[in-house]
Parts: sequence; C-alpha cells; structure tokens
Amino acid sequence: MLTRSERATGDCVTLMHYARKGIITEEMERVAERESVPIETIVKGLAAGRLIIPANIHHKNLDPMGIGIELLAKINANIGNSAVTSKIQEELKKLHTAIHHGADTVMDLSTGGDLNEIRQANIDASPVPVGTVPIYQAAVDVDKVEEITPDQLLDVIEFQAEQGVDYITVHCGLLLAHLVHVKKRITGVVSRGGSILAHWMLHHRQENPLYTHYDRILEICRKHDVTLSLGDGLRPGCLADASDEAQFAELRTLGELTERAWQKEVQVMIEGPGHVPFDQIQMNVEMEQEICHGAPFYVLGPLVTDIAPGYDHITSAIGATMAGYAGAALLCYVTPKEHLGLPNVEDVRQGVIAYKIAAHAADIARGRPGARDRDDALSRARFQFNWDEQFRLSLDPETAKRMHDETLPDEYFKTTEFCSMCGPKFCSMQSAYRIDRIDEVLKEIEEESSMEQAEAKNT
Amino acid sequence: MLTRSERATGDCVTLMHYARKGIITEEMERVAERESVPIETIVKGLAAGRLIIPANIHHKNLDPMGIGIELLAKINANIGNSAVTSKIQEELKKLHTAIHHGADTVMDLSTGGDLNEIRQANIDASPVPVGTVPIYQAAVDVDKVEEITPDQLLDVIEFQAEQGVDYITVHCGLLLAHLVHVKKRITGVVSRGGSILAHWMLHHRQENPLYTHYDRILEICRKHDVTLSLGDGLRPGCLADASDEAQFAELRTLGELTERAWQKEVQVMIEGPGHVPFDQIQMNVEMEQEICHGAPFYVLGPLVTDIAPGYDHITSAIGATMAGYAGAALLCYVTPKEHLGLPNVEDVRQGVIAYKIAAHAADIARGRPGARDRDDALSRARFQFNWDEQFRLSLDPETAKRMHDETLPDEYFKTTEFCSMCGPKFCSMQSAYRIDRIDEVLKEIEEESSMEQAEAKNT
Repeated sequence: MLTRSERATGDCVTLMHYARKGIITEEMERVAERESVPIETIVKGLAAGRLIIPANIHHKNLDPMGIGIELLAKINANIGNSAVTSKIQEELKKLHTAIHHGADTVMDLSTGGDLNEIRQANIDASPVPVGTVPIYQAAVDVDKVEEITPDQLLDVIEFQAEQGVDYITVHCGLLLAHLVHVKKRITGVVSRGGSILAHWMLHHRQENPLYTHYDRILEICRKHDVTLSLGDGLRPGCLADASDEAQFAELRTLGELTERAWQKEVQVMIEGPGHVPFDQIQMNVEMEQEICHGAPFYVLGPLVTDIAPGYDHITSAIGATMAGYAGAALLCYVTPKEHLGLPNVEDVRQGVIAYKIAAHAADIARGRPGARDRDDALSRARFQFNWDEQFRLSLDPETAKRMHDETLPDEYFKTTEFCSMCGPKFCSMQSAYRIDRIDEVLKEIEEESSMEQAEAKNT
Repeated sequence: MLTRSERATGDCVTLMHYARKGIITEEMERVAERESVPIETIVKGLAAGRLIIPANIHHKNLDPMGIGIELLAKINANIGNSAVTSKIQEELKKLHTAIHHGADTVMDLSTGGDLNEIRQANIDASPVPVGTVPIYQAAVDVDKVEEITPDQLLDVIEFQAEQGVDYITVHCGLLLAHLVHVKKRITGVVSRGGSILAHWMLHHRQENPLYTHYDRILEICRKHDVTLSLGDGLRPGCLADASDEAQFAELRTLGELTERAWQKEVQVMIEGPGHVPFDQIQMNVEMEQEICHGAPFYVLGPLVTDIAPGYDHITSAIGATMAGYAGAALLCYVTPKEHLGLPNVEDVRQGVIAYKIAAHAADIARGRPGARDRDDALSRARFQFNWDEQFRLSLDPETAKRMHDETLPDEYFKTTEFCSMCGPKFCSMQSAYRIDRIDEVLKEIEEESSMEQAEAKNT
C-alpha cells in the first residue's frame, strides 16, 4: 500500500494513475473502509473514471472520501465570503459548522478579503476535500474582468494546486458557439464563472481560455492530483431555461473534455443544474451519465420551483433527492439565503441538514446496503419512548431536543409516553394501546363463534 | 344554477348527487372558475368520484374548492390544540396563518379545551373547508377509550356535521383481521384514531364500530354533504413498516367502502401514508388509484426518512412532491414539530410554505397549464434586478425581504445589480455581463476569419 508521500513523486501523482496500474494507495483503502465496499470496487471505479477521490497531495490532514454512483451519495457545502461581507473567523466557523453537521466536501467561494490566506486557512483546518473556482481569484486580481489573461489564470490554478486544493471548478466546456443559445433564455448566464468567461470571450472575440489551454490545466492536475470539476457555465437559472440547447451543447463539450482528462489520468466530475422541473431531473442525470461516459455527476440542487426565495434549501433538497435517486453522486447544497444574500453560519447549518436529508433519502431509495439502519434504530427508540436516544440518533439532536422541550422542558417528560403534540391520552404509541394480545383475542373470538355455532346446533 | 340554500333540501344534498343528475350548483361553478377548467370537468369528475368539493351545507362562509387529479394539487394544514397546550385565540391565529400562506383546507385536530366551541369558531372563521377526526371528541368525552359506544360516536359525527364540518376522517376500513399484520412492525399503529379503535376492538372483542355502522355514517353525510376522508388507521409510522400487508389490507377495505359511499352519492377521499421510502411513493399512489377506483388520494407527506425530527416539514415535502407528481390530490402538511410537540404559529407557517413548494413543484412537473407562470415572472424580475417585484412574487415576501435586508438593509440596495451573496463584481446577472451582442460578435469573428483566409490566398 502506497502512502500519500510515497505517491507524491513522479510526473503523474493522481489516484486514477495508480488505480490504472493496479497500485493500491492509502486513500483507496480508507475509502473502501469508510464505505464498507471491497477495495476492488474503489480501484476499478477510479480506473474507469466513474469514481473519484479528490485528494491533493499537499492537503495533509485530509481524511479521504470517495464520490461515485457505487458509493453513498455525498453533499457539498459552499462557504466563503464576498466583497460585501468578509471575515476570516466567520468563514472558519462556517467550515466547522458545515463539517460538524456532515458536509462531505466544502468549496471556498470567497471573492473578498485576502483570498490566499482564507483558502490556506480552510485547507489547513479541513479534514474534507476543499474545492475552489480559480477564476474568482483571477477576477479579483484585475480591475475589469476582460483584463484577465490566460497565463494569469493558469498561474492562479497552479498556485491553488500547490496550496492543496482538492478540486477546482473550471468552466472549460463553455464555447463561443454555445452563447447563441443563451439569447432565448429568461435569466441568461447564471454561473458566476460562466458569466465572467462569456464577457471575456465577447470582449476579446476569442474562444474560452480554459478550453484553449485545457492541456496545461491537465498538466497541473497530474502534478498535484487536483480533481477537475468541469463547470456548467450555462446551467439554467430558472425553470424556463432548463434542459435547453445551451445547457446540453455545453454538456456535450464536457463529455469530450472528460475523455481528454482520462487520457491524461486526471480525475473528473461534471457539474450540473441548477433550476429544473421535477419531471426533468431523472432525464438530466441519465443524459449526463451517457454523454460524460459515467463520470460522477455533481448537481446544484436542482431547485424545482423559482418562487420560494428564502426557502431554496427546501426547493432544492426536493430536486437533490430526485437527482441522488437517479444517480447523481455529489449534491451541492443551497442555503435559505440563495438569491438573497451571503449565507451566515445558521444558513450553512440549514443547508447542510436539508442536504443530509436529501442524500440519505436517496441512498435509502437506491437500496444501498445498511442505508436504513439509523432510521430503524431511531424508530425503535421512538416507539419505546426513549426520548434521549431518539434525539441522539437525529440529524440535529440539539434542534430536536429544543423543539421537544419548548412545551415540556421538565426532565420528567423525557420518560413519559407522550409529547405535547398528542398529550397523555392521544399518543398512538403508548403501551396501553399496544396490540400485543391480538393473536389471543382473535383466537378467543374464533372459539366463541364455534361455541355459538355448536350451541345453535344443539338447540 | 343551484345556490347553496337551494340544494340544502331533500334526503341527499351532496354535490355528487347533483352532479350525477347533471344539475350545476354554485359550488361547481366557483371551482370551475378558480381552476380555469370547463364546468363539465367538474360535473363529470364529481359524478365519477374522482373529484370532490368538500362543502357542508351549514358552512356558510365557505369559498368552495375542489380536490382531484384533474385540478391543481392542494395542501391541508392540521391545526388544533392538545390537552397539554390549549388556547382558543392561539388556534384562531394558527387558522389565520395557515390560510394566509395558502392552505387549501384545514383540519381541527383539537383534543383539549372546549372542543365544540373551538370547532365552531374555526368553521365560522374559515373560508376553506374544515375537517375533523370525530373519534377524538368521542375519546375526550369518556374516561377510558373503551367506554366509547357506537351510538355516542355516531352522535358526535352528527353533531359535527350539523356544525358545518366539511370532511371527517373516519377509520372505517380498520378491521380486526388486519391487526395481526401489525405485530411485525417496528412502530405498530401510529394513527391516533386507529390506535383508539384498535384498543376498543381488542377490549370488546368486536369489529370496528365505524365499519359495522358505516351505513349510518353515510346517512349523516348525505344529509349535510359531509365528505368522507377514509382514514388509514394502519399507515406506516416508519420506513421499515411502509407498504406492508397491514397497510394494503386496510386499503383494500377502503376500496370497498369507497364503492358503498358512491352508491349512496357520498363524496370520498382516501388517506395515505405516512413514512415511505422515496422509491415506493409512486407505487403507493398508483395502488390507491387502482384499488379505490380513482377516488382522490390525500397523503400525509410522506416522510422519506425517519432520522430528521425537527425537520420533518422538509423530509415530508420531498415525499409530498413525489406523491403530487404521481397523482396525489391533497397533501397534508407536516410541521417541523412533528414527533416532538404541538406546532405553534411559526411551525404552522413553516409547514404551509414547505407544502406550497411541494404542491407547486408537482403541478409544474405534471405540466398543468399555466403552473409555471409565476416562476417565469419571478425569474424575469430577478434578471432585471427588480428586487421589490421579486419579493412580491415570492411565496413568503416578508422572509425573502428580511433575508436580503439582513446584510444590505439600505433602500439603495433595492435597485442595485447585486446582493451580498456575490457583491458588485461577481453577480452573473448584472447588465455588464449580458451577452446581447453575441450575434454581432460571432458575425465579426466570421468575417475576420474570411478576410484572413482571403488575405492568406492573396499572399
């Protein structure tokens, strides 16, 4: 078994590279252990590209995790500040909150403050893979986004790779020819990276530099094992724009770029929408799996309606459940603040929990072994009125306990056979209503009825 | 067109009765108007039983609404106190909150205080149909639930019918023989009405009085036009118990009772689960539609995981969206307090909004005409940075505005092309990033390329 430092030598240090050689690394072993799957599943999945382990060789305190259709569904939490709201301690609190509640990966999307410092602080503090969108930094470093140069962009990517970023969103598949289709849309280009690139491309009358310099990006990824998260710059920003020609034209380019990455043994996942009507979600996942040759699908929600700003953790958790059920491997959370403002710590918590629900519900629906064990354990505790155990097994024990205690705070009520919802007489689960004696009763009824029949005959 | 008071004469005053005769009433016209469907759709649907209009002739200020697979999906909000927490003003505030945010029907599930007074206050104040579970009152009126008598139960039903209750949950399909299947379950019987009846049946060694006296119930319904909501006393209370023999045995009996109700021209809907894994929801809806001959399906959620007490408005809104998409007609909300305590006004609001999202997402996914109009309008406002219009079109304008204003309260920021999420430089939607000139640019590129080719030829 190869350790992290042992694999960090040579031209290509990616886990895909080692998997294809049949060499098992500590990251692969750890993921097999965490997922309770055979190591072969991990090695074969990595080699084929349908499974990734984002694990930059410079991210020292990473606890490796895997993303792929054969593993449990995972969730990503976006953190990071903006130019309007920016404090490093607040960002680290968001990181802690996201991981505490179960985020499997985090993206630092900061666009304000000292980006390099914030990013390094996040990587150093994070046991989960950290992702970024390098073009944000490139845009911060110039006055106007058209001043970004390809070399500058590549330098940013290399710098972040050396810092230990595990995966980067790069909108390499956005081409000039795709932009024609955007004109029909209600909300145009809604990806931030996509809109910066589109502006740059139109200004310079040149093709997307992330596309023209794709091979240089792949070289950087090979050297540090940065996983590519091929961004969907043309993801739909409202239901009306979903599943349109712009979106699928870009997806087809991402399919080609996936093959080129795999030729260089670079790990890849594909980003997906966005805003999608509930009935189109399964089709979107299936199309990605087909066009991108089974590369893991990383979806943002999708939101199943546009009319609920303030509640988009819910509108999108609905879509994310469907996406996970259909085969999406990584679900990017959306917080209640989406479309309205920068999420704070509480928004991060709300987003993560909504997505833990979505991922878990999808795992159960896909019939993953053992996925329902915790549900069954909690339900048993519920039926036994073991309130403390019910809280302990909850996704958010503090909230569950607080809600219970709102009306019945006394310690006495942690052992009673009711809560304030039903009161002492109306709880269906209380032992007085148990039907343990049903067999006995049915037998007695049967006997009585036979006796009556016998008596009727005798008279 | 028959007015409410005109139809309120004769032995049978139900809308199903009049629809079968081809007589149009004001309730039918109002529902056709609200749903923008031809009056024939309403009349035929009522006559066939696949559409209901719960409209007790004594509910004077009712604004009639319809429930059925051909209409928009509807949501129900449960209100009512328990013996632990009971204040009539608080209940009326819940009623107001539920209706303000868009509940289409409400159920008064009170089990504490002066039930008759609370119920009458709710009916008098409610423009939407009011439902109840009469066995709760029967249980409150005795010391031990086994002391309930069939006559007492029927008297309660008749009293509530005379008060103007539009629909009643009666667990008429729960039979002694079904209870055997409950023994295998983790959480047994979780319907409150079901558990009271099961206890009564075992104590007296007698069949369910709501089953044996079903014809008397139908007589009361015919007289006042009370719609039957045939309860699922054996609905699953956890994922492990979903779709089991107990649940489906009762459903088959409900199918028989549906036919008997329709013979008497009584309106019927069927109650459904509960806790159901995401992948089994569609099957559950289809089974109900088949076994119950197309009677509208009224589901409680379903919750797609058991592990998130405190967030069951989300776990169940996910299931409700799927159920609505599959054909459920009425979605009963679940609040964040489910399993933990009696919902307060804020819980009611959270529950209603989560279910407005679910019902709306299902309507869009089913392709109902015009369902997406509001989404498109809001998305246009969003793209135009018309913040006030975006708030106005939101399901919860106050919350959307409050979240926006949390970081950017100044009135100035209601016209800016960014919010605190992205800041001034990173909003993808801002006009500087618009690609309106794409055609022009592509044409120029093409021309340049032709000129270069021509020049290349000339040299």
